[in-house]
Amino acid sequence: MNTTVEQLRREVELQLNRIGFSETPARLYDPVRYMLALGGKRMRPVLVLLANRMFGGNEQQAMPAALAVEVFHNFTLLHDDIMDKAPLRRGQATVHEKWNPDIAILSGDAMFVKSCQLMMASPSAAMPAVMNLFLQTALEVCEGQQLDMDFEHSAEVRIEEYLDMIRLKTAVLLGASLGIGAALAGASAEATGHVYDFGVNLGVAFQLQDDILDVYGDADKFGKQVGGDILANKKTFLLLTALEKAEGTLRDQLLYWLQEPASDEKVQGVKAVYAGLKVREAALTKMESLYQAALDHLEALPLSAEQTQPLRELAAMLMAREN
Amino acid sequence: MNTTVEQLRREVELQLNRIGFSETPARLYDPVRYMLALGGKRMRPVLVLLANRMFGGNEQQAMPAALAVEVFHNFTLLHDDIMDKAPLRRGQATVHEKWNPDIAILSGDAMFVKSCQLMMASPSAAMPAVMNLFLQTALEVCEGQQLDMDFEHSAEVRIEEYLDMIRLKTAVLLGASLGIGAALAGASAEATGHVYDFGVNLGVAFQLQDDILDVYGDADKFGKQVGGDILANKKTFLLLTALEKAEGTLRDQLLYWLQEPASDEKVQGVKAVYAGLKVREAALTKMESLYQAALDHLEALPLSAEQTQPLRELAAMLMAREN
Repeated sequence: MNTTVEQLRREVELQLNRIGFSETPARLYDPVRYMLALGGKRMRPVLVLLANRMFGGNEQQAMPAALAVEVFHNFTLLHDDIMDKAPLRRGQATVHEKWNPDIAILSGDAMFVKSCQLMMASPSAAMPAVMNLFLQTALEVCEGQQLDMDFEHSAEVRIEEYLDMIRLKTAVLLGASLGIGAALAGASAEATGHVYDFGVNLGVAFQLQDDILDVYGDADKFGKQVGGDILANKKTFLLLTALEKAEGTLRDQLLYWLQEPASDEKVQGVKAVYAGLKVREAALTKMESLYQAALDHLEALPLSAEQTQPLRELAAMLMAREN
Repeated sequence: MNTTVEQLRREVELQLNRIGFSETPARLYDPVRYMLALGGKRMRPVLVLLANRMFGGNEQQAMPAALAVEVFHNFTLLHDDIMDKAPLRRGQATVHEKWNPDIAILSGDAMFVKSCQLMMASPSAAMPAVMNLFLQTALEVCEGQQLDMDFEHSAEVRIEEYLDMIRLKTAVLLGASLGIGAALAGASAEATGHVYDFGVNLGVAFQLQDDILDVYGDADKFGKQVGGDILANKKTFLLLTALEKAEGTLRDQLLYWLQEPASDEKVQGVKAVYAGLKVREAALTKMESLYQAALDHLEALPLSAEQTQPLRELAAMLMAREN
């Protein structure tokens, strides 16, 4: 593990614990504390602080914004868990299970308010810009979540639509975290745009890697059930690519397996179709081109290789999961 | 109807229709448009504009903030309707009924983001102050809603706790609307505090009047089923006062009726207890003292009687419903 990242993560964890949520009403704020205590990689606040440091910013002044994006991210997880009817989050009961859906809606709302309050505590010179980027991103995250729900029920989803959905649902918040960190350090609009685009491209690449690992990952290292997406007919980059490419016998086989119930045979059957269509290769190619696009945005910054090194290391680390 | 208020209301209605919500994803933004088109008195944005005008502000510059509080208010109604399982809102299907609860959660979230974006469009000199007041108020509204839900299940609620709940759930947003309008016009912190307190006191008084009208109102004019609170054992100011005052036979009678199912006899029985305890008089006294406290805050402003007249007229109009 990168020592800079690990040090920033510890600092974020410490400060997250110090956010003063009111004790009452307990049923509003206990779920907020519970959600934030479930842990996680704290990737987004670390990105705020890394970008801020890269442009010579003051870490203490960037901390409220870093906490804001983490609280916001947890708000989206809380509300998404209700919509997904997820029983567990990081191995613990989700808020709507441990309390109830009404509590989960309302404490999520309170988390979003709190995230805005934290962002507003940014130094006044940069506050309007970072707040506007934050809110624009928040709206896009809502749009991405809606598209994700829409896609579950749509007969046909184009690959471009899928890429746009994952960009909105997950990647823009990574880009915004970096952009906010840069803007707080006084980076120019152009430089802020480049770190934002670095984050968005990296975020989409990371999500494609997730799609790939779900099918081809090492069960021990991936941490989720391998093949889960295939079992659920989830419209991933792989399945959408297969549906676009498949013709003749391979198409018949794919459509056959899609209407079959979940089973090991189904996973093997779909993987055989993917192999015939070189779907994994197509996904890796797309992922690598996004990764390269991300790095190109770092190259475009008026910074030395030494200054951009922590972000390049982080990107390399993210893309080096087992696949 | 006061012509100033009516004119401002029409202007707000016009501008609400011009807020540019994206066309896609349709299932995210259609519910937002639907909710805002259901109508309503547009009381909160009118309060922003009235306070702004009272301090000599520029109406165009206050309009985004006025729209922000109305969009925020509708966001709270949308999420509250899910929690209350309300089938109808202004005689139309609620969003969670017309679409589904997931759509209602997410489009509510998007409305809240949009309300923040509108507030951020306020002139930069006053923006941080009005945004911070807005967010503090938003958090308090969440707290009020949680307390309201908590009270449904609590055996004993003190009158002071009830008053605090309605202050948070409904009155602070009226106060904040006025305070934001004043701050945007460059009013001092002290003056802003007084119009805020005027609104909060008026808001609590208005809610007490609602409790009174639910029992003693004219069915034709009240617009809701008279006696509904009694039928539902709702913990209103009247019931809590009765529970606090009742002793001996009257207490036995009250407890008897509370465990009886809904019926006309129950309404008459509880009203008889209220009469014996002079509960209506206690509520009217409290309401009038809050109304007077509100007016005292207007008196404390460094403004002429002519300048504060529109707000005094509005307050008188609000308190002159049939009771």
